[in-house]
Amino acid sequence: MEWREQDTSTCAIGTTLDLVGKPWVLLIMREVFRGLHRFSDIQAHLDVSRPLLAARLEALVQAGVLARVPYREPGQRPRHEYQLTEKGRDLYPVLTALRDWGDRHLPKDDGPSTIVEHRGCGARVHAALVCEDGHRLESYEDVQARPGPGARSLTARG
Amino acid sequence: MEWREQDTSTCAIGTTLDLVGKPWVLLIMREVFRGLHRFSDIQAHLDVSRPLLAARLEALVQAGVLARVPYREPGQRPRHEYQLTEKGRDLYPVLTALRDWGDRHLPKDDGPSTIVEHRGCGARVHAALVCEDGHRLESYEDVQARPGPGARSLTARG
Repeated sequence: MEWREQDTSTCAIGTTLDLVGKPWVLLIMREVFRGLHRFSDIQAHLDVSRPLLAARLEALVQAGVLARVPYREPGQRPRHEYQLTEKGRDLYPVLTALRDWGDRHLPKDDGPSTIVEHRGCGARVHAALVCEDGHRLESYEDVQARPGPGARSLTARG
Repeated sequence: MEWREQDTSTCAIGTTLDLVGKPWVLLIMREVFRGLHRFSDIQAHLDVSRPLLAARLEALVQAGVLARVPYREPGQRPRHEYQLTEKGRDLYPVLTALRDWGDRHLPKDDGPSTIVEHRGCGARVHAALVCEDGHRLESYEDVQARPGPGARSLTARG
């Protein structure tokens, strides 16, 4: 089956973009990855209205990428904070690939605003194409794509 | 400078999402990566109207991720096709990270619709976190982020 004959409605890129393709999703996830877990902190940093942020955080909880976890400061009423789930943590390579691309193709005069390093050795971290045999790929020209078991043809879609 | 005090308007993730954060951007790029370069092929595959697709392709040419290249079939008038620029090719890790995430967290009953393999050895290809010293990172817990030279504080934004 050629790609042009393949039904794209089952493509993992498409279904993922349905869920995380809105820019605000990855911006909120960025905040949580950077250690902001409380509503008021995220709101102050993103400059978004309370109702809108509440709806968006709820959508991310529903999508399973964030979890609402109760906490209570002394003398205060119980509140919730937002923690990454495993599904949420696994979005980190997406954010890293976006940051790499921006650092390379939309560079700022004074350099990147954020440096991400390997905790173990201090070297800069990037998202790279690797294969399961351990090879590092230089570019997309080193890959070949073929229909998988879930591929369906356009004509079969009916 | 703590992250909560940092002005996010210079963040490479944010500026990249301004450009490529709309789902249709990465869907069109997916088609071109999979070898569809002509307007009619992309239109048939994405099921989008001619004027809308024309506007979107023009936006991608303006953004520098696609190039319009003339071609002429025998007996036909000259037409254009869309080729990846270097800036466009460098989006492949973003698409790969999204596909990995979808294959893992939104799996289909009958398996992935697309398999991407290393042309050299046939092993499956993924987007992985690696550092410049050659270490492979298991998760975002192995990274540490710090403000870079382009970081600005929120209070300095004025």
